[in-house]
Amino acid sequence: MSSQKDHKLCMIPGPVEFHEDVLTSMSTLATSHVSPAFIPVFGESIQLLRKVFLTEKGQPFVVSGSGTLGWDMVSSNLVEPGEDALVLNTGYFGDSFSECLKVYGAKVTQVKSEIGERTTIQEVSDAISDKSYKIITITHVDTSTGVLADVKGISEVVKKQSPNTLIIVDGVCSVGCEELRFDEWGIDVVLTASQKALGVPPGLSILVASERAIEVFKNRKTPIPSYYASWAHWLPIMNAYESRKGMYFATPPVQLIYALNTSLKQITSIPLETRFEQHKKASNRIKDALDSLGLNFLPKNREAAANGMTAIYYPEGIQPADLLQKVASHNVVIAGGLHRAIATKYFRVGHMGISATEPERKHLDTVISALTDSLKELGYSGK
Amino acid sequence: MSSQKDHKLCMIPGPVEFHEDVLTSMSTLATSHVSPAFIPVFGESIQLLRKVFLTEKGQPFVVSGSGTLGWDMVSSNLVEPGEDALVLNTGYFGDSFSECLKVYGAKVTQVKSEIGERTTIQEVSDAISDKSYKIITITHVDTSTGVLADVKGISEVVKKQSPNTLIIVDGVCSVGCEELRFDEWGIDVVLTASQKALGVPPGLSILVASERAIEVFKNRKTPIPSYYASWAHWLPIMNAYESRKGMYFATPPVQLIYALNTSLKQITSIPLETRFEQHKKASNRIKDALDSLGLNFLPKNREAAANGMTAIYYPEGIQPADLLQKVASHNVVIAGGLHRAIATKYFRVGHMGISATEPERKHLDTVISALTDSLKELGYSGK
Repeated sequence: MSSQKDHKLCMIPGPVEFHEDVLTSMSTLATSHVSPAFIPVFGESIQLLRKVFLTEKGQPFVVSGSGTLGWDMVSSNLVEPGEDALVLNTGYFGDSFSECLKVYGAKVTQVKSEIGERTTIQEVSDAISDKSYKIITITHVDTSTGVLADVKGISEVVKKQSPNTLIIVDGVCSVGCEELRFDEWGIDVVLTASQKALGVPPGLSILVASERAIEVFKNRKTPIPSYYASWAHWLPIMNAYESRKGMYFATPPVQLIYALNTSLKQITSIPLETRFEQHKKASNRIKDALDSLGLNFLPKNREAAANGMTAIYYPEGIQPADLLQKVASHNVVIAGGLHRAIATKYFRVGHMGISATEPERKHLDTVISALTDSLKELGYSGK
Repeated sequence: MSSQKDHKLCMIPGPVEFHEDVLTSMSTLATSHVSPAFIPVFGESIQLLRKVFLTEKGQPFVVSGSGTLGWDMVSSNLVEPGEDALVLNTGYFGDSFSECLKVYGAKVTQVKSEIGERTTIQEVSDAISDKSYKIITITHVDTSTGVLADVKGISEVVKKQSPNTLIIVDGVCSVGCEELRFDEWGIDVVLTASQKALGVPPGLSILVASERAIEVFKNRKTPIPSYYASWAHWLPIMNAYESRKGMYFATPPVQLIYALNTSLKQITSIPLETRFEQHKKASNRIKDALDSLGLNFLPKNREAAANGMTAIYYPEGIQPADLLQKVASHNVVIAGGLHRAIATKYFRVGHMGISATEPERKHLDTVISALTDSLKELGYSGK
C-alpha cells in the first residue's frame, strides 16, 4: 500500500481509489482478445457479475464505453419509437437519461422531485395509473445530489399496478455499495460503470438485463436505431465468451477486463450483505462527522441519502474553489457540485470501494481531518 | 524489457505489444477526471493527436469505446437520413461500416473489390459520376484482408469530380503506421482506435474531423440520431480539456488517456516520416521472409498490401488450428482469418508499433522463426 501514499487521495463519487491488485491488472502485458489466456478471464467476469447483481439468470453485458453508454443501450434496445417512458428524476442524471430516451424516439414523462427529496411511492403509483409505460427508470443514487431511491418500494408498486412495465435502474453510483437485489426485487435492467463501487478504472459500461428484458428486445418490431449499442451485436459476444469461445464484434478493452476480473473476485470473496453493511457504516461515519461540524446535507434525511457518497452544502461564507483547493492542499481530492441549479452551493465526497471496505487504509479519517482542518483554516467555526 | 520476456509475444493486427512506459501509465493511481493533475494530460493528448494525424486544425475526439464506435460517430453526426454514402469495400470492415451507415438512415452504395484487390481510381471515378454522395468511406487498411487503399489517389479524384463529398478514412489499422496526411490530402474524417499502431491498450475510440466536417455537422437539419456518439456532447468536452478546463458529459477513461499521452509523446519524438519508413521496412522484412518460404499473400501485390500487418494463405495441407497452436507453443500469438468468405484459409500477423520501431526487441525475428519452425514441424517443406 505504501506505493500509493504519495498521491492525493481521490475521495470523489467516482473514480474511486483502486486496490493495488486491480492497478496491476491494468498493466497486463499485451494479450490477444481471442486468446486462450483472455477468454476465460472475460467469461468468468461475466459470471461473477451475476453474483454482484444478485441474479441467477440475468444477462450481463460488458462493453467498452462510459456509464453513459448504458442509457443508449436501454433506450435503443428496449424502447421503440413512440412508446412511453416514465423517468423518476432526482437530479442531473434523470435529466440526461430523459434526453437520451428522447433521442431514440421515446415519449418521456418525468416525475421530478425537489432537490434533496426522493420520489415517493404515492407519486409513482399516481403516475403509472395515468398511462401504460413501456419502461420506468429509477436513478438508484443520483450522483449529482446523493439522493438514494427506494428501488424496492418502487418496484413493488410497479409490479402490482403495471406488471408489464420494465423496471430500469441506473445503478452507476449504487452497484457494489447499495443494497440492490436484481432477482428478488424483479428488476429488468441495471446499468452501471466500472469506476465507482466496482473499484475498476473508468472505461467499462456494465449492464445486466432480465430474461424478460431480453425477450422484449428479441420481439421488438422496429429496427434497432443504434449500431454500437445494439444488443444484436453484444448478446452473441457475451454468450460466446461465457461459453469460453472467442468472437469478434469490437475489440474488448482487455486490460480493463483483467482489472474487472480482479475486483469482482475481491468483491465476491465476502457476502454481499457484509459489503452493503460496510458502506452503510462508512457513510454514517462521514455523515455523523460532518453533521457534528454543523454542515447541512442535500438529501432531506438519512434514509434518502446514498451510502457511497455524501452531498453537502457549503457553510455560509465559504467559497467553493477555496474549500476544494484547501482540501487538495491536505492531499485529498473531493468534488464540486454537479446539479445545474445549485452547482456552486455544495460539494461531494465519495466513500465507495476500498475506502469503505478496508478501514485499515484510514481513507475516512483522512478525508474527515482534511475537511475539518480546511474549514477551520477558512475561518469556519462550526455550529 | 526483461519483465515482458515471459509472456507470449502478441503479433496480431492489434492489440499490439505495448511499451513498458505505456503499461506503467495504465496503472496510474486513482485520479479525478476533472483534477488539475489530469486535465493537462487530456488536453495535451488532444493536441499531440494533431501531430500524429498531420493536421493543423482538425478536431480530435477521444472517447471511451472501441474503434467500432467511430463508425457510429461518422454515421450519426455527418449523414442525414436518406443521404447517399459510397463505401469502398475491401473486406469485412467495409461490410460493417455499410451496416452501421444504414442503421442511421444512409442510402449505401458499395464498390466491392475482389478479395486481395484494392479499389482502383477508375472505379471510384465511375462511381462518383453516377450520384452525388454526401460521404465516401475508405478503409485505409482492411484488417481482415491486409489490403492497403490508395487514400491519396482516391482523395484526388473525389476532390476533382465531387468536391462536396466528405472523405472519410477508417484508419483503425493505419494511423501510426501507414502514410496518412490529413491536411495535405484533404481528408475530412479519420477514425481509429488505441490498440493498433498508436500502441495503447484497447478502449479508446479516436477520431479527427476537418473544419469542413464540423461545419457540415453544425449545419445538419435533422436531429442527431445517437446520444453517446453525438458530437454535440463531445465537441464542448474536447474544447474544454484542450483549453485546460474540466467539463463533464461522461467519465473519461483516465488511465487509458494517461497511456495514450505516454505513447503519443513517444510517437511524436521522431519525425513521422521515419515512423512510416520503419513500418515499411518491418513489413518488407516479414513479407520477404514469408515469400522465401513459398507462402502466398491475400493482397495481390506488395503495393496493395498493408505495412502494419500481413495476411497469408495457409499452405496446402496445413490446418488453421494446427498452425496457430504450433506458433503459440513457440510463445508467439498470431491471428486467424476474419473475412467471412475465407476465414479458415488464411492467417494474419501484426507488425505495428514497438515491434516495428524498436528492432532491438527482435519481435520480427521471433515471429519469423516461430512461423518457420512451426511450418517445418507440421511437415511443410517450402516451395
